[in-house]
Amino acid sequence: MNDDKLGKSEANEPNVGESLIEGRNPVLEAFRKGATIDKLFILDRSQDGAILSIRREAKKHDTMVSFVKKERLDQLSPTGRHQGVIARVAAYHYVEVADILAIAEEKGEPPFILLLDGIADPHNLGAIIRTANVVGAHGVVIPKNRAVGLTAAVARASAGAIFHTPVAKVTNLTRTMADLQKEGIWLVCADMQGTVMYDVDMTDSVGLVIGSEGEGVSRLVKEKCDHSAAIPMNGEIDSLNSSVAASVLAYEVRRQRGVRVI
Amino acid sequence: MNDDKLGKSEANEPNVGESLIEGRNPVLEAFRKGATIDKLFILDRSQDGAILSIRREAKKHDTMVSFVKKERLDQLSPTGRHQGVIARVAAYHYVEVADILAIAEEKGEPPFILLLDGIADPHNLGAIIRTANVVGAHGVVIPKNRAVGLTAAVARASAGAIFHTPVAKVTNLTRTMADLQKEGIWLVCADMQGTVMYDVDMTDSVGLVIGSEGEGVSRLVKEKCDHSAAIPMNGEIDSLNSSVAASVLAYEVRRQRGVRVI
Repeated sequence: MNDDKLGKSEANEPNVGESLIEGRNPVLEAFRKGATIDKLFILDRSQDGAILSIRREAKKHDTMVSFVKKERLDQLSPTGRHQGVIARVAAYHYVEVADILAIAEEKGEPPFILLLDGIADPHNLGAIIRTANVVGAHGVVIPKNRAVGLTAAVARASAGAIFHTPVAKVTNLTRTMADLQKEGIWLVCADMQGTVMYDVDMTDSVGLVIGSEGEGVSRLVKEKCDHSAAIPMNGEIDSLNSSVAASVLAYEVRRQRGVRVI
Repeated sequence: MNDDKLGKSEANEPNVGESLIEGRNPVLEAFRKGATIDKLFILDRSQDGAILSIRREAKKHDTMVSFVKKERLDQLSPTGRHQGVIARVAAYHYVEVADILAIAEEKGEPPFILLLDGIADPHNLGAIIRTANVVGAHGVVIPKNRAVGLTAAVARASAGAIFHTPVAKVTNLTRTMADLQKEGIWLVCADMQGTVMYDVDMTDSVGLVIGSEGEGVSRLVKEKCDHSAAIPMNGEIDSLNSSVAASVLAYEVRRQRGVRVI
């Protein structure tokens, strides 16, 4: 799976923008995953269980800890929801698409990838990465130009999943899609006009392509897909929250694969 | 379906707000009381303190703001005394649980209800109501004490679904659950320790009980349920965003019913 096209055609640079993780679970998760935390800010006199666990991890990893007042945390906090703890980390790094395929191969599973076409909201991106992890997908692909990166808000919304589920950031999503198709991956686009998802065979290698809430999948990207899958809709409102839509489709893939495997 | 217990045991007051609120103090007051303001009209270039306070509230509540000329305000104004600001208030009201059952009966469908045990985040509540609408559920039940109400943020996150999908607010969730069971509704609780959802029969009348993200369904509520359904999880992270979890389960109900109906 060391395909040159997938490995080298995309210039992935690590995301050196945000480097703060906040909230108890995300910080604990970051420690446990082995993220390089270079400094920890903890609320003065905080003594509860979760904070003590974090302090134990910090001691184990020889991490510098600074006890600060709430005002300092509020000031540092990117989202305001630090729950008494903020970690300054070495930046996350992105993987190559070929790495995602290698993970699937290692697990002996047909690749299952989520490709996000312009998800702009960090909460949605985080929730989708979280779902990708929980549903057992091998990775997530985001385009460089039309999406948010892996910021602290994304990390938090992912509940720490970004430390487990690899994310590749590609320059040209349609080119990556063509490369994936050459690897035998069936690209299924989320599209209201598509075939109802229960009737789309997603039991083999699949790349699920999800668009943004407002615009859906762009025309160019849609044209590249092998099939379109629609979530059945029976109400007055004609769309779902994008992280919900991605998750409902991802779980349909999971269901179909389960039926196949079990 | 005009069951007395379901119709009268809960003291729901309908929210019969004005459709337009005008004047600085009334608008500020409306924000502070948690009214669902879906749009704010403010006089162009208005910069004084009261207007700035209103704009801060609008920002905090994610309310759409439109800056307009005096002529437009005069035209909108019911009394002519707008003082440079008019708020358009969503005038929805809560329903009784019996009303939700009546809707199902009218449609000739077995009832499909979502019961939310303490969803505290307005974005999640809004996204769940949106899913309830799109998936074709007949209504949503929330407890009075442990949840957010239908605020502007909820309305916005629901993409307008709160104007279509009825929401009942009940004093005692477990009592409502007992009443629903007497109506022959099968209560399925979302629970990681439950039976995998594909193996839980949800083809007939079903009330899906969803807990909050941190705590899940409370013990008392769980004990009342007829069955527990688990979303299969294959990753390192052991929970989904609560609106995602509710939606994945709701779509499993939809899939099973579709198979039954079609």
